Amino acid sequence: MASAIQTNVESASARYAADFTQGDLVLPPAKKYLVLTCMDARIDPARAFGIELGDAHVIRNAGASAVDALRSIIISQQLLGTQEVVLVKHTGCGMLTFQNEDAYGVVGKNLGEEAAQELEQRKLDFLPFPELEKAIEEDVEFLRRSKLVPDSVVISGWVYEVETGKTRRVV
Amino acid sequence: MASAIQTNVESASARYAADFTQGDLVLPPAKKYLVLTCMDARIDPARAFGIELGDAHVIRNAGASAVDALRSIIISQQLLGTQEVVLVKHTGCGMLTFQNEDAYGVVGKNLGEEAAQELEQRKLDFLPFPELEKAIEEDVEFLRRSKLVPDSVVISGWVYEVETGKTRRVV
Repeated sequence: MASAIQTNVESASARYAADFTQGDLVLPPAKKYLVLTCMDARIDPARAFGIELGDAHVIRNAGASAVDALRSIIISQQLLGTQEVVLVKHTGCGMLTFQNEDAYGVVGKNLGEEAAQELEQRKLDFLPFPELEKAIEEDVEFLRRSKLVPDSVVISGWVYEVETGKTRRVV
Repeated sequence: MASAIQTNVESASARYAADFTQGDLVLPPAKKYLVLTCMDARIDPARAFGIELGDAHVIRNAGASAVDALRSIIISQQLLGTQEVVLVKHTGCGMLTFQNEDAYGVVGKNLGEEAAQELEQRKLDFLPFPELEKAIEEDVEFLRRSKLVPDSVVISGWVYEVETGKTRRVV
C-alpha cells in the first residue's frame, strides 16, 4: 500500500504532467550555471533564487557543502558546460548546531554498534560548521583553489535568510 | 561587477522576499520525509513532486546517487527526524552517457596534469550508471541494506520523465 507521502507524489505528478509543456528542454543547462544550496526544507531554490526550468543545475546537500558537492560540480562543469557557481548557505542551518562527535554519538545510540562501525569504516565527516559567513568564504575559497575547477568559472557566495526570504551576497 | 546570473539572483530575491510570509517555519521538515533527486536542470522537485515549503528535505546531486547522499541522509534522518525517502532518478540523465574513464580523460585534457592527479588522489568515483531502472533498484537496495538507515524508514524509487513531466514508481 502506498504511504501518504507516496500518494502525494502521485497526485502532484498527475497535476503537474497535465499542464506540462516543456518536454523539449535539452540536457545541458541553458544559462550555463549551477546553484549549490542546502537540503533545508525551508528553501525553494527555483522561486527564491529565480531559476527557470532548464536553466541551471541545482545541487543540494546538508549545509550546501562544496567539498561534498565536488563530484557533481565537476560533472556539471566539465561534461555539461556550466561556467558559474552560485553557492547559497542559510541562516538557521542545522549544520551550525552540532559537531561530528555529536552525530557519531547519536548514530551509535540510535542504531547500535554495527552502524557506528560502518560510520568509522567510511570515515564519514558530517561537515558541520560553527560560523555561517566564514563557512561560505571557506567553501568559495575551496572551489577557487581546487585544480578541478578552472579559474574561468565565476563563483559567488550568498546567505539565504529563512526568516525573511531574502538572499544576500557575502563573497 | 555582478554577472548577469548574480543580478538575476538579486532581482528574483527582491521579488520573492516582497511577498514572503513563511518566516516562522521550523528547522525539522514538517512532513518528516526527504526527496533525493538529480541536479538536472529540467527537474523542479517542488512542483513536479508536490513539495510545500517546510515539508521535506531535498537532496540533489549528479544522478540522484544514494551513495553520494549518505552523509545528508543520515543527518536528515538521525538529527532532524525524517522517516521516509523518496528517491527519483530521471529519463535522459547525463549519468547514463559516460563512464569514469571518460570523465577522467576529459578532466586531464581540459584541466591538465595537476587536476588529473587531484582526481586520482581523491579516488573520485563519478558514479555513472548504464541502466536507469536498475540503478534505482540498486540505490534503494543500498539504503535498505545500510546499517546507517534504520529498517523503519520507508524507501521508494521513482522515475521522472523529462519528456512528459510524469513521475512513476519503480520500487
